[in-house]
Amino acid sequence: MAKDFVVTPWKVEGDIDYNRLIKEFGTEHLDDALLHRIKKLTGELHPFLRRKIFFSHRDMNWLLDEYEKGNKFYLYTGRGPSGNTHIGHLVPWLFTKWLQDKFDVLLYFQMTDDEKFLFKDNLSLTQTNSLAYENALDVIALGFKQGKTHIFTNTDYSKTLYKNALLVAKKITVSTTKAVFGFNDSNNVGELFFTSMQAVPAFLPSVLKGKNIPCLIPHAIDQDAHFRVARDVLPKLGFYKPAAIHCRFLPALGIGGKMSASEKDSAIYTTDSADEIEKKVKKYAFSGGRATIEEHRKLGGNPDIDVPYQWLSFFEEDDSKLKKIHDDYKSGKLLSGELKLILIEKLQVFLKEHQRKRESARKVLDKFILKD
Amino acid sequence: MAKDFVVTPWKVEGDIDYNRLIKEFGTEHLDDALLHRIKKLTGELHPFLRRKIFFSHRDMNWLLDEYEKGNKFYLYTGRGPSGNTHIGHLVPWLFTKWLQDKFDVLLYFQMTDDEKFLFKDNLSLTQTNSLAYENALDVIALGFKQGKTHIFTNTDYSKTLYKNALLVAKKITVSTTKAVFGFNDSNNVGELFFTSMQAVPAFLPSVLKGKNIPCLIPHAIDQDAHFRVARDVLPKLGFYKPAAIHCRFLPALGIGGKMSASEKDSAIYTTDSADEIEKKVKKYAFSGGRATIEEHRKLGGNPDIDVPYQWLSFFEEDDSKLKKIHDDYKSGKLLSGELKLILIEKLQVFLKEHQRKRESARKVLDKFILKD
Repeated sequence: MAKDFVVTPWKVEGDIDYNRLIKEFGTEHLDDALLHRIKKLTGELHPFLRRKIFFSHRDMNWLLDEYEKGNKFYLYTGRGPSGNTHIGHLVPWLFTKWLQDKFDVLLYFQMTDDEKFLFKDNLSLTQTNSLAYENALDVIALGFKQGKTHIFTNTDYSKTLYKNALLVAKKITVSTTKAVFGFNDSNNVGELFFTSMQAVPAFLPSVLKGKNIPCLIPHAIDQDAHFRVARDVLPKLGFYKPAAIHCRFLPALGIGGKMSASEKDSAIYTTDSADEIEKKVKKYAFSGGRATIEEHRKLGGNPDIDVPYQWLSFFEEDDSKLKKIHDDYKSGKLLSGELKLILIEKLQVFLKEHQRKRESARKVLDKFILKD
Repeated sequence: MAKDFVVTPWKVEGDIDYNRLIKEFGTEHLDDALLHRIKKLTGELHPFLRRKIFFSHRDMNWLLDEYEKGNKFYLYTGRGPSGNTHIGHLVPWLFTKWLQDKFDVLLYFQMTDDEKFLFKDNLSLTQTNSLAYENALDVIALGFKQGKTHIFTNTDYSKTLYKNALLVAKKITVSTTKAVFGFNDSNNVGELFFTSMQAVPAFLPSVLKGKNIPCLIPHAIDQDAHFRVARDVLPKLGFYKPAAIHCRFLPALGIGGKMSASEKDSAIYTTDSADEIEKKVKKYAFSGGRATIEEHRKLGGNPDIDVPYQWLSFFEEDDSKLKKIHDDYKSGKLLSGELKLILIEKLQVFLKEHQRKRESARKVLDKFILKD
């Protein structure tokens, strides 16, 4: 099939057709029946669910069946620490936090410092490991529960992880990694082994407790390849297949693809100042507005391609406010510059508070970290 | 080139031409000049050197240059714990112990429980790990110095090993492992990664001390493939290439190849009783004797193909005693049964003492073991 986009764990590019991804990856739509079922258990739906920002899943119905039988699940998500945290990274984490609150469950959060070292020519292991602990501050700042949230880097928890990864690795051939990840003989052997490390948190609590515990992985859809492999292997080791729930990417400030921590101008970082936020949004955010104010007033803007509007659809939780922005922009009543200001203020308020919590997180970091 | 033998880290079969191995692997003969140089430093030559049981090396002259400059080396060897220790395994260890005594150096001893799990369908990680600690008793029983000898299993020391293995893995492509080890796309990804773990002890002390320390690896020649890779990668990471000194295999009791821990009748285990030793040697040891006593008296035996004689050439340290056995056997004065009795007694005496030391080793095992 001809492709105008790429979605792998290491590359996200082009104009992504999320429906096609569901078909190609073999996942399921997060349909209204399932949303209804979740709402019955949680009392309300997170905006990311109402707006289908989380749009796809694997085995959510099985997971909720187990939950209703009293077989509680735990959450597993993670981060590849290749740079500072940007607000796109926060999307699955914010949702994971909501799930933790609503279901009162444990979270295992994996920082793949090994992966980023293996896949990035320009990063040392010392750098990826130190980035991991910086990124962990952003995780903690979101309010995850102390004592119920275990964050670990792969290298500092490797005594536990490595021996469990071996169980997985023995069941994965070179052929499989070539087919699933598009590897070839020029890849390094660490890259091929790595998916075994990413599989471990999907069954580790079952090993530690000595009984099978269902696992739910909220994650951006680009990581699905890893969990396709994990879902194939884990039953062979006597564990459940992990369930998963997948989100879209927050678009880059410029047009298309996924925000990248390594392309500085395409992203707003969690540590950006109010001025930087303003400057980046004003300078780089792709606009769906018209060439002149007159034209805009007459013909209206296009919120579907307008990045500031797209971002508000992630971060403005109030549906009626968002609808008014949408309609006013489309009608021409709201100008592009004005729309940008709404986003700028939203981000400035959110990140100011986030940065305060992020600094406080340094004091409790140790309480969240799992090490061998 | 047509081959009538195979020597890889996972398979040793056929009638091995050690000279051809030197050529194919690109190692060097352990020649008289080098033996002379070693003798100058050690005062005497171990029988394994005098008899060219250690027959090949890499960079021994460089290692001794460094030693003479005051840049002391350390020793690194290991064991793949796939079964009980047999007396063939003791060959490189006995020599390593001699080197430790003569040069007063540290030894790092790696137990590759991960490797044996990954490469053996029928072994669990629990089994290989527990075999590793059983095998460690045999190592300690040989008299290695407490405080100067660090034995570790890869899984129980993996916090240290894994992150260092990543440095190596990033520099090894799939192609390289295919070329060096003969892997193909049906191999599992753990098998490809594993050589990175075996490389680590060749530079780990340099990491731990923060300065480059020369490393000498005494080992059976079948492991050379791993160290060819390590010698290629380590300089790229800023470390010395490890030097190596290689031994032949103690032949199996039946004819040809290497003794195998998984073919029970081909081996004498360190835990075999006096009766078992006697029974196995009498029943299975391939003889170079004649069909009848009369013929033997008249024509003499062939020590070159006689396994009991070959074994004595490893374990009878007294050159004149060995020569007498050789000559008497060749002349027909010594019968095959008598030769077998000499070997049986030698093994019974050695293993009785070994078993006593092996049991005492349980009490000090912890003092030798490195864990994270």
